[in-house]
Amino acid sequence: MDSWILFQTPPSVIGYASVVGEKEHEGPLGGEFDLHDQDDKFGMPTWEQSESEMQRQMFQLLLKKTGVGEDQINGIFAGDLQNQCAASGYGLKDFDIPFFGLYGACSTMAESIMLASCMVAGGLMQKAIAVASSHFCTAERQFRTPIEYGGQRTPSAQWTVTAAGGVMLGKDGAGPIVRSVLPGRVVDAGIKDANNMGAAMAPAFLDTLTRFFRQSGTQPEDFDLILSGDLGAVGKDIVLELMRTQGYDLTGIYEDCGLMIYDTKKQDVHAGGSGCGCSGAVLCSHILNRMRRGELNRVLLLCTGAMLSAGSVLQGLSIPGIAHLVEFCNKGVVEK
Amino acid sequence: MDSWILFQTPPSVIGYASVVGEKEHEGPLGGEFDLHDQDDKFGMPTWEQSESEMQRQMFQLLLKKTGVGEDQINGIFAGDLQNQCAASGYGLKDFDIPFFGLYGACSTMAESIMLASCMVAGGLMQKAIAVASSHFCTAERQFRTPIEYGGQRTPSAQWTVTAAGGVMLGKDGAGPIVRSVLPGRVVDAGIKDANNMGAAMAPAFLDTLTRFFRQSGTQPEDFDLILSGDLGAVGKDIVLELMRTQGYDLTGIYEDCGLMIYDTKKQDVHAGGSGCGCSGAVLCSHILNRMRRGELNRVLLLCTGAMLSAGSVLQGLSIPGIAHLVEFCNKGVVEK
Repeated sequence: MDSWILFQTPPSVIGYASVVGEKEHEGPLGGEFDLHDQDDKFGMPTWEQSESEMQRQMFQLLLKKTGVGEDQINGIFAGDLQNQCAASGYGLKDFDIPFFGLYGACSTMAESIMLASCMVAGGLMQKAIAVASSHFCTAERQFRTPIEYGGQRTPSAQWTVTAAGGVMLGKDGAGPIVRSVLPGRVVDAGIKDANNMGAAMAPAFLDTLTRFFRQSGTQPEDFDLILSGDLGAVGKDIVLELMRTQGYDLTGIYEDCGLMIYDTKKQDVHAGGSGCGCSGAVLCSHILNRMRRGELNRVLLLCTGAMLSAGSVLQGLSIPGIAHLVEFCNKGVVEK
Repeated sequence: MDSWILFQTPPSVIGYASVVGEKEHEGPLGGEFDLHDQDDKFGMPTWEQSESEMQRQMFQLLLKKTGVGEDQINGIFAGDLQNQCAASGYGLKDFDIPFFGLYGACSTMAESIMLASCMVAGGLMQKAIAVASSHFCTAERQFRTPIEYGGQRTPSAQWTVTAAGGVMLGKDGAGPIVRSVLPGRVVDAGIKDANNMGAAMAPAFLDTLTRFFRQSGTQPEDFDLILSGDLGAVGKDIVLELMRTQGYDLTGIYEDCGLMIYDTKKQDVHAGGSGCGCSGAVLCSHILNRMRRGELNRVLLLCTGAMLSAGSVLQGLSIPGIAHLVEFCNKGVVEK
């Protein structure tokens, strides 16, 4: 059965916001983020609370930028990488808005946009907000070792981005619109190396993107940009190669958020950025800015997640991946 | 703004399934669950993998009971209590169905039904499945201490239920229908005792249920049963008392899944059951059975979640709660 959802009444982007850490501010997109904090702590005593506070500041800024009050929002769709999604639960608890907690690993930004879009397009909500965040220091001590330990990183390892992104969707907005979405399936290619997430997630990206082209009747050249979040350098190469075997040439059209947010030659991030805050912040700044300026008119965002836990790695399980797809269009670009 | 969602074309229950552990099988509802395993391991070497396998068996049984193939399902909405929702990610990875990972702590069953219902009612999906699970042994070692440690429990502590529940929703089905839903807000009442979850979650229950009565124009006596999942003995008493202060008498109408699944006098579970598998399995057996027999015609399910993590407790944070509401009705019971 086709899983592709083409909206009859597509929701529009009303506004968006992004807040990042210092390293992200120093990267090539640094000037496009709304706010950053010099020590990544956002004034809080622990890293976990810093991530929550980063989300809270991003959310408050989003309301301010759009001029929309919290009493006009029907739902927040939010998630992060912390155990029990604690960054979102604590970060957004002071807003009196219905809350839907999500867990999609690094696919969360697309999952949250997909659900918020469906609620608006289905006439179930007037306005909804999609949120995702990640924080380098919370991820290091939860999934790997505390940063004080100074563990060495392999070349295929990715650097968890300290960032929060949020986008408000509604029936009417400046745009772009969310034209369609395609939810991902869990794909297990048998990869067991938790320091090579790109390889674990690339097969899920392939599964979703090829299904999308088939079900929507489109080709790579119909899009100005196909964006993954985040496969990094290793995953990007695998994707280009695997897509070629399926008859699709993505050269020149395909980019990865994890390779855009840092200067991978100078910033010592090995295979690039990762974490659901990476695609969240890159989308909710650089990409939507470029779409609003008309430099990009039709963009596919595929956020990829690795559905492992620290425990599942210790138990020797393979790492299933998932990739959710969102199609953004400027109004009037695609005829119905 | 009203957050209550009354469906114009309400989705129907096509079928449901439940799989539990031995202690749950020995409880008062034991005869109503579809399957149980005598050692709670479901043939697997670790507790975490046992929970995944329990979910997988439940899901497969649900497809078998309904006679619906996986190619006819547009989406799974699933969650659990394990870090990174690993029980669901691994448990359902072999089904070729789009997957939406959720985290709502013990509110997950209502969150998943709510989203699946909205997707069907909004015309975005034909059929969707809502799933939740929990496992006593995975929860003990993740949130408290491994069971081998033999830690003492306080009287207000609840016993995490070993169970998985799932319900298939679609445009047409034997019923009951999901007439309406009301998503919860995160409510922080300042409770810091992680062994008294009932007290932490009761204010969220109050917030959602009073909003529901106001926005839907209903009263407690309009319902055959108002069911929480799971506040336990302590939370139930708090709810009865707090609702009285708001002018609502729930005596005789209100029950708690955590007090139904065990014989609390004989089974040594202190304040009763908890875990998102508890409301999942009680709903997807006893409650829906009684509705289909016509013994209950209109039921409110409010699943309550405590949005803490083991880390947030160690950092001295309070425990925010959330309560999501789903209204089940037999067809024709309520006039539009």
